[in-house]
Amino acid sequence: MATATWTRRHILSLADFTSDEYNAILQTALSFRQVLNSRTKKVPALQGQVVANLFFEASTRTRNSFELAAKRLSADTLNFAPGSSSLSKGETILDTAKTYLAMGTDMMVIRHQQAGVPQAIASEMDRLNTKVSVLNAGDGQHAHPSQALLDLFTICRLLDPDNPRIELLEGKKIAIVGDILHSRVARSNIWSLTAIDAELHLVSSPTLLPQYFKCFGEGRPGKLFLHWELEPALKDADFVMTLRLQRERMTQHLLPSLREYHQYYGITRDRLKLCKPDVKILHPGPVNRGVELSSELMDDPEFSLISQQVTSGVAVRMALLYLIGGGKQE
Amino acid sequence: MATATWTRRHILSLADFTSDEYNAILQTALSFRQVLNSRTKKVPALQGQVVANLFFEASTRTRNSFELAAKRLSADTLNFAPGSSSLSKGETILDTAKTYLAMGTDMMVIRHQQAGVPQAIASEMDRLNTKVSVLNAGDGQHAHPSQALLDLFTICRLLDPDNPRIELLEGKKIAIVGDILHSRVARSNIWSLTAIDAELHLVSSPTLLPQYFKCFGEGRPGKLFLHWELEPALKDADFVMTLRLQRERMTQHLLPSLREYHQYYGITRDRLKLCKPDVKILHPGPVNRGVELSSELMDDPEFSLISQQVTSGVAVRMALLYLIGGGKQE
Amino acid sequence: MATATWTRRHILSLADFTSDEYNAILQTALSFRQVLNSRTKKVPALQGQVVANLFFEASTRTRNSFELAAKRLSADTLNFAPGSSSLSKGETILDTAKTYLAMGTDMMVIRHQQAGVPQAIASEMDRLNTKVSVLNAGDGQHAHPSQALLDLFTICRLLDPDNPRIELLEGKKIAIVGDILHSRVARSNIWSLTAIDAELHLVSSPTLLPQYFKCFGEGRPGKLFLHWELEPALKDADFVMTLRLQRERMTQHLLPSLREYHQYYGITRDRLKLCKPDVKILHPGPVNRGVELSSELMDDPEFSLISQQVTSGVAVRMALLYLIGGGKQE
Repeated sequence: MATATWTRRHILSLADFTSDEYNAILQTALSFRQVLNSRTKKVPALQGQVVANLFFEASTRTRNSFELAAKRLSADTLNFAPGSSSLSKGETILDTAKTYLAMGTDMMVIRHQQAGVPQAIASEMDRLNTKVSVLNAGDGQHAHPSQALLDLFTICRLLDPDNPRIELLEGKKIAIVGDILHSRVARSNIWSLTAIDAELHLVSSPTLLPQYFKCFGEGRPGKLFLHWELEPALKDADFVMTLRLQRERMTQHLLPSLREYHQYYGITRDRLKLCKPDVKILHPGPVNRGVELSSELMDDPEFSLISQQVTSGVAVRMALLYLIGGGKQE
Repeated sequence: MATATWTRRHILSLADFTSDEYNAILQTALSFRQVLNSRTKKVPALQGQVVANLFFEASTRTRNSFELAAKRLSADTLNFAPGSSSLSKGETILDTAKTYLAMGTDMMVIRHQQAGVPQAIASEMDRLNTKVSVLNAGDGQHAHPSQALLDLFTICRLLDPDNPRIELLEGKKIAIVGDILHSRVARSNIWSLTAIDAELHLVSSPTLLPQYFKCFGEGRPGKLFLHWELEPALKDADFVMTLRLQRERMTQHLLPSLREYHQYYGITRDRLKLCKPDVKILHPGPVNRGVELSSELMDDPEFSLISQQVTSGVAVRMALLYLIGGGKQE
Repeated sequence: MATATWTRRHILSLADFTSDEYNAILQTALSFRQVLNSRTKKVPALQGQVVANLFFEASTRTRNSFELAAKRLSADTLNFAPGSSSLSKGETILDTAKTYLAMGTDMMVIRHQQAGVPQAIASEMDRLNTKVSVLNAGDGQHAHPSQALLDLFTICRLLDPDNPRIELLEGKKIAIVGDILHSRVARSNIWSLTAIDAELHLVSSPTLLPQYFKCFGEGRPGKLFLHWELEPALKDADFVMTLRLQRERMTQHLLPSLREYHQYYGITRDRLKLCKPDVKILHPGPVNRGVELSSELMDDPEFSLISQQVTSGVAVRMALLYLIGGGKQE
């Protein structure tokens, strides 16, 4: 699919993404990744358009990544701060979104602690016959599509720097380790990494990896496996994705101590020996050093793709804004 | 009055506005409203100028509206966040304003919980012989001129889309319903809507509409009426403005329950039958659905002007910044 | 030294600054000061570059000054808000900085409550072979170089408006009065004001001016004097710098009441008579009026350079970003 034929207005979940769509994003992101290395870094693609970052759940890192992506496309950005907003005055979320619509917003980047809010806003925008696009920047435990897409871009670009495409994943083995249950990052990655004939292995403690996750693999081209122990998942793995461990899970009795977690599921140099020799590690950040993975591994450019993920994040978000914004790159 | 002859430096209150000034704003806002519909959306009128949003009282909606207006005129914007500011270090408000003056601010958009702060800062700027303009974005219960001007623009543009002017209000009947006593929006609208030979009807409970409001109508071209019951105000009305009900008024024993308020003063489809058939409803937002007006009316484009008010807000604020900034539109 | 030969990548402290470096900054700041007076105010020097304001310690004033400087050089800016950031999620400061590096940040402006954080980040950026520049915007009680440089620019520009240079300080007498012990502003000014053969007099109570400050003067071209009483420091002084008094010092029993402080060390019109007739007063702001100096003196343009310091701040910060950014001014 050429970029010119992109038709999706909103990016809410990767559940129904086609290979053509994945590849359109990967190829567009590649061209923006090259713009980032050039001297100018900016393109006028979205000049005059307004991107509103409606982060009902606070986040500096992801908001800054979207904001920078928008600015490099020459869009104007608005930032919504939940603390001082009209929400505390009794306004509904849909009314807040409609206010930004009426102000002239062209694209809304939405993060919310409740799953489904970006979808609800997108439906309302369509019902009102607007052309506004909604980009899910993380909703509850449901989805975080731009994170999974930047993970995909990071992996595929490593496999073929000049021509990243989802078919490169065929036959690869990827392990996702950590708090799968509460992770929107894991859920979005499950969709993208089973969209092709790859092997995806999920690993966690029984409290954080319910058996119903098996259903996500049904009818997908890829194969999905669940493990409560690390070793079978790491065996001959090409990529290991670690997830952020939220410390509040321990007070909820879902986890033992951080030290014990590291002992069972932490990625160390020793454990990496089970994997393919050229295995690479990903992490969506921010990292608890010494918990999800050992501090030295995180900093080892031979294994860690973490900083490349952040850089890819800006390029992939530029691609998403560009594709759904219908801009013409000059 | 042609735009070229605009002389007012600050916009603090509408108390002494002339019809010529209202019309200069309405006509300038119309031209910017058309820019907003064009592909480019931006004009270089205020390039290099600095607009500082000094919001001592937090507000996302109004600040974003002013910020977007400034950006579409190509100005640079600075945002002042009271929480983390030098105010907590013992600095006076005038010294804060003088710091922004010294940084090179050209226009200050000021919101403060105390009435009179924008006026005090404007006086200080004049006393220091600066050319800085001050725009009151809401001070205590005193004034919120840009809100009343966007209400006026919304109404007049409905009456004549190609030539909005204040004279279109002649002979019209407008009702303002709600917490008049504490509302800066009501006070500013009283000035604009009595500046011409129209009928303005204020409605609220006795606790929220003191008799001294009659004085605001004295010597004005328009006629001002006060009511404690809704029906006579709605009878044959052309426009109904509802005000936001602040929930804290109930703990102050100024109001019964929300349900009782809605029963007495809430605008419903049934009550609208008292008005002219083509009556329109305005609300400054954010709305408490089902309190000030019924949820279905709020969403009915046949009656509700609410989203047009928000859109007009950006155009009117562009007009204000443009006129007081002395910019030349290209 | 011509601007073209500037080699320093980071601005962390003034301890080892050369006269040539001071003069390169003063001359570059002068040219930007003139840009600020022109109609356009903006230069495209840093177009496409990203300046990240990482203010781990909240500050509106300094952040806005750096932000405006960056915007006037046409850079894109990112603002990091510690409250809602990944720091609260267990990320280390170096990892936060590396995330901004990976996003494509070219310059980091860093404020932190702990001394040494900007240095640590700069070392890490160098260790990683990046070209990222770090600008210390205040770290604990260690240094605040941009403040001392804007003080220097304000003084030298007064002495020769067309050719500010550090040599103009030769033979001048400068007094710094206030809470020297806890002041990063004082420490940075001690480095710049002893870099030339001037007389620098520090004045405070014994609790706020330990004897070890004498060491800062050793081996420096300038002469450093310590006083516990105001009079000998003010005698024939050309410039008096007052420091902000932090109210929390009183609860720490380091100070008597504000009134007593003002009685002993407050600068008043009467006490200024001890100084040279054309003495000038500086203060980094925000000022506690009637404590560090009398309210009327603060507003007297014959004596006070305070608002010129703020204006100089934007020009000096433009110069710093320009010089370390290696931009070409057009």
